[in-house]
Amino acid sequence: MPRLILVRHGQSQWNLENRFTGWWDVDLTAKGEEEARAAGALLKAKGMLPTLAFTSLQTRAIRTLHLALEAAGRVWIPETKDWRLNERHYGGLTGLDKAETAAKHGDEQVKIWRRSFDIPPPVLEDGSAFDLKADPRYAGIAIPSTESLKDTIARVLPYYEAAIAPALKAGEVVLVAAHGNSLRALVKHLSGISDADITGLEIPTGQPIVYELDDTLTALERYYLSER
Amino acid sequence: MPRLILVRHGQSQWNLENRFTGWWDVDLTAKGEEEARAAGALLKAKGMLPTLAFTSLQTRAIRTLHLALEAAGRVWIPETKDWRLNERHYGGLTGLDKAETAAKHGDEQVKIWRRSFDIPPPVLEDGSAFDLKADPRYAGIAIPSTESLKDTIARVLPYYEAAIAPALKAGEVVLVAAHGNSLRALVKHLSGISDADITGLEIPTGQPIVYELDDTLTALERYYLSER
Repeated sequence: MPRLILVRHGQSQWNLENRFTGWWDVDLTAKGEEEARAAGALLKAKGMLPTLAFTSLQTRAIRTLHLALEAAGRVWIPETKDWRLNERHYGGLTGLDKAETAAKHGDEQVKIWRRSFDIPPPVLEDGSAFDLKADPRYAGIAIPSTESLKDTIARVLPYYEAAIAPALKAGEVVLVAAHGNSLRALVKHLSGISDADITGLEIPTGQPIVYELDDTLTALERYYLSER
Repeated sequence: MPRLILVRHGQSQWNLENRFTGWWDVDLTAKGEEEARAAGALLKAKGMLPTLAFTSLQTRAIRTLHLALEAAGRVWIPETKDWRLNERHYGGLTGLDKAETAAKHGDEQVKIWRRSFDIPPPVLEDGSAFDLKADPRYAGIAIPSTESLKDTIARVLPYYEAAIAPALKAGEVVLVAAHGNSLRALVKHLSGISDADITGLEIPTGQPIVYELDDTLTALERYYLSER
């Protein structure tokens, strides 16, 4: 039976500071590292051992994967890193904390950007300190200047179909260590959640979510591994 | 110009205890972790930044890779883990410390096994505590029961030709984080070292060795990055 395990990265420095992060590369805090190790220890304790892993190009997700795999005794499984599993790009909000964002744009507008399915924040302006054009990890990639959740889903799902689904069909137990919104894309698809409801679905950090799938990759069951 | 960077894993628990390790999976010590981070910091300081990485299926080499890439700011590069980059399999010596080995086999015999090019140690016996047949990482792989250095080279070089050489020819800066004997195989090949001399060549832990290669992957230069 195909199995897909989703893990959202543990706390990052900017989660802690309540700043919009998006594609900016921020590392885990000590608490975030501990969450990642605990996720891996749980995989091991429950015998839910991945045979193949996917993650984004962002340090906080990659390190979550590595720390979890170390704790699970599975650091040797193949892993693939791909930008299409990156967090949603928050455009011009990148780097702003809650107070700065509210002062600049107003609470109501921010709520719209956070909670709407298809309205992206303003674009990241040229010359911003958070411009990633010179980052070699994105060489050859059309870096978005902002994304709605819909935009994020539009790049996550084709990657799921092209790279992850074939592995599941081949019998791999697949672990995806990624971000709140790239994981929302997968949960929306697999659990058939509506556009209106998906933005309100919170995916907790460091909590392995397991999908049991049938041969056509239709979800039979979704659960938190900690509850089994 | 193609570039190949070799890094031998930092100190492991059994390096510290002076025990034959081979394919047994032993983790880094705190000192070994520090060596790995220092190797990565050196890559960054010298601007010798890998674009692609290879390592073995053994925790000590994989973690050396990860810690070095973190320190170099390159944890996002693609990485491939393959058993053919594993350490030499020490057969029946696996797990024995220096005193145990000498007591069991005599100092002279041990020197022969350590230093000869093509005489393998006795095979690892069935039922040994160090048997890896049940280890899922080696499922589908014909695990050797012992190896001479010659045997190790005979599996490393075909992998180099099949996977690493094409990447070098495609312009990647390739980092290989591996083991004393799998790296000897590469150094023997690239530097044209004789069978007699290669067993005496010590590769220091955590010290990046750089090969500058021409388009046919003939070595133009080999140096310790710390000396540039």
